[in-house]
Amino acid sequence: MIYLDNAATTRPYDEVIEEIKKAQELFFANPSSMHAAGYEAEKKISDAKSVLFSAIGADVKGKNGELLFTSGGTESNNLAFFGLLQNSLKRKPHIITTKIEHPSVLEPVKFLESLGAEVTFVSPDENGFISPDSVLDAVQDNTKIVSVMLVNNETGAIAPISEISKKVKAKNKDILIHTDCVQAFGNTKIDVVKMGIDMLSLSAHKIHGPKGVGGLFVAKGVNLKPFLLGGHQQSNLRSGTLNTSGILGFSKAAEIMKKTFDEKQNLLLSLKERLIDNLKGNELFSINNEGDGYSPHILSLRVKNVRAEVLLHALEVHGICISAGSACSSNRPAPSHVLEAMGYSKKHIEETVRISTGAFNTLDDIDTFCEILKKEAQALSKFTRI
Amino acid sequence: MIYLDNAATTRPYDEVIEEIKKAQELFFANPSSMHAAGYEAEKKISDAKSVLFSAIGADVKGKNGELLFTSGGTESNNLAFFGLLQNSLKRKPHIITTKIEHPSVLEPVKFLESLGAEVTFVSPDENGFISPDSVLDAVQDNTKIVSVMLVNNETGAIAPISEISKKVKAKNKDILIHTDCVQAFGNTKIDVVKMGIDMLSLSAHKIHGPKGVGGLFVAKGVNLKPFLLGGHQQSNLRSGTLNTSGILGFSKAAEIMKKTFDEKQNLLLSLKERLIDNLKGNELFSINNEGDGYSPHILSLRVKNVRAEVLLHALEVHGICISAGSACSSNRPAPSHVLEAMGYSKKHIEETVRISTGAFNTLDDIDTFCEILKKEAQALSKFTRI
Repeated sequence: MIYLDNAATTRPYDEVIEEIKKAQELFFANPSSMHAAGYEAEKKISDAKSVLFSAIGADVKGKNGELLFTSGGTESNNLAFFGLLQNSLKRKPHIITTKIEHPSVLEPVKFLESLGAEVTFVSPDENGFISPDSVLDAVQDNTKIVSVMLVNNETGAIAPISEISKKVKAKNKDILIHTDCVQAFGNTKIDVVKMGIDMLSLSAHKIHGPKGVGGLFVAKGVNLKPFLLGGHQQSNLRSGTLNTSGILGFSKAAEIMKKTFDEKQNLLLSLKERLIDNLKGNELFSINNEGDGYSPHILSLRVKNVRAEVLLHALEVHGICISAGSACSSNRPAPSHVLEAMGYSKKHIEETVRISTGAFNTLDDIDTFCEILKKEAQALSKFTRI
Repeated sequence: MIYLDNAATTRPYDEVIEEIKKAQELFFANPSSMHAAGYEAEKKISDAKSVLFSAIGADVKGKNGELLFTSGGTESNNLAFFGLLQNSLKRKPHIITTKIEHPSVLEPVKFLESLGAEVTFVSPDENGFISPDSVLDAVQDNTKIVSVMLVNNETGAIAPISEISKKVKAKNKDILIHTDCVQAFGNTKIDVVKMGIDMLSLSAHKIHGPKGVGGLFVAKGVNLKPFLLGGHQQSNLRSGTLNTSGILGFSKAAEIMKKTFDEKQNLLLSLKERLIDNLKGNELFSINNEGDGYSPHILSLRVKNVRAEVLLHALEVHGICISAGSACSSNRPAPSHVLEAMGYSKKHIEETVRISTGAFNTLDDIDTFCEILKKEAQALSKFTRI
């Protein structure tokens, strides 16, 4: 198998799998239990939290804020919006976000809109970039939150969060900055302090950690209400028995990610370069996200006159895994809202595939993949009529 | 360590740990991805669901309804209430539940009450039992849902769900029956069809499965709305990347649970009998939940003139893990709302501990535990002034 769908999910590091196994054997007690085994599990979680704080540029002791453990990126994004706004809908709060966010941001925002919130969806430019000024222009007197993802999951476009935060807060310091970093984590530098971030969503399974666990960083002073209600765990901000083994696996993945960041970054850059070298100049292909400003782990590629889904099935026969558009959301085919917002034609969107690399990919993977891709694309482009 | 806090959480079976490890290595692809690796993960999840259907008496192909995978019992309970009622609050729906539910039922219900729902909290009798007639008496014209936990997490009291469902539905067939089976699963028989259950909450980590995964069974015809919004996974009823390894671990635990049900039931009965044999007749102790109608895995014990928390700390020196009251919710000490609802005095509540057994306990564990307990209780009862 040549796995090039790392933006959808990643293979866990062996050390992560081992850490999870160990935690299940040794630290299985409920971290909320008032006995030695419970305290030990609680201590392990506290250590894991320090590692994660450090991985996002926050003080390891929590001086900058709290990290709430959730079931993943989707819950983190839901918690950010519902936890911040559900009690103040009568005052018609204004939300600024973008047209290219992940559905786990867009859907909560649309739901809040149906309940009375005002929303501005900022458009990207034709290359998928969000300009700080277009966000600034959207600010109103009742704006409560600005939410812009740091790295887009279809194009890899990196948003200028620092600049957005600076400009927005200069206009009104009470506006909170939320950023969905599910796709950014491990692929671009994150620093909650320097970037002026108030809330930040993370997911473990995109950084070679386990599925079913994520986090929401909440800066000091943010008045968040809980979303999941129950046993008052995590200072009553997120009820539910803490998933010790998942959290320890998450932290182990973040530790490796931090330690090998430069090495992985260089690998991703060389993989993307090799992809481009292999495909550029061939009239069958055009690259949607060449140039600066994109995370190196995603190549958005148009294969002319070949429907992405047809190509995917032809490639899977060869054990190749890539994706059509995002596909990290459910497996019902729908045209990409991201590429649509960038002004792409229906045909262009239907012919776009996403190739996303990770820590386990090699240059050989890329060469083999490109060879097969060229053959299949060549054959299919002759027969496919869109 | 002698671990007697299985109602808080359990040690995963070795087979579960192995299954999770294997899933992380082999089936890590995103089950929503449109390639062979994604389909394979999706197929594994579908097989796991069949095992879980079977474990709760439902048709393995889903003819009776759907099983939504969640992050645990807390999310399952939140999803049941918010998913059913959040869109109909203007019509002032009436909820019937009991005073002895888990906080992950009570807190969502109280929140819905603050938003306009009407709620009746049915009281248990002095032994912790809920009578079907007291539930029936609470039914109003606007009653939408009756939620009664099958096994109470502090006393083990089993609720007569079949009879409650029959009586309530005879009065109004449209009222839905929800039951929190987090504590019941693996410790008493569950049959969603025979019991007349419309929604049922499960958690994996109470049946020697992993933390961070649970389920909500939703019978055919129930009009549930999603709670977590995003990528439209699970027929848009629960967004978020499916936690393949957690779900496979959950299913493995349920498979073992079902296969060894009678054997485990006999073990739990013999452990409880041995506990009672060891402690009964000793004037230091009185047993809160002796007799029929209780799940065998919980012994609720009063240790006279000794505060539970003090006793817990004395026991943990010996490597013994038991709990004070429920303690499966957060580790802030608060008097048990369950024992309070049963009419216990403050002193009685403060002197009550919960001993809960599981598949890994032995009669030797019980004998050693009782010996140490008697010694420590004897010593502490002389010095503690409550």
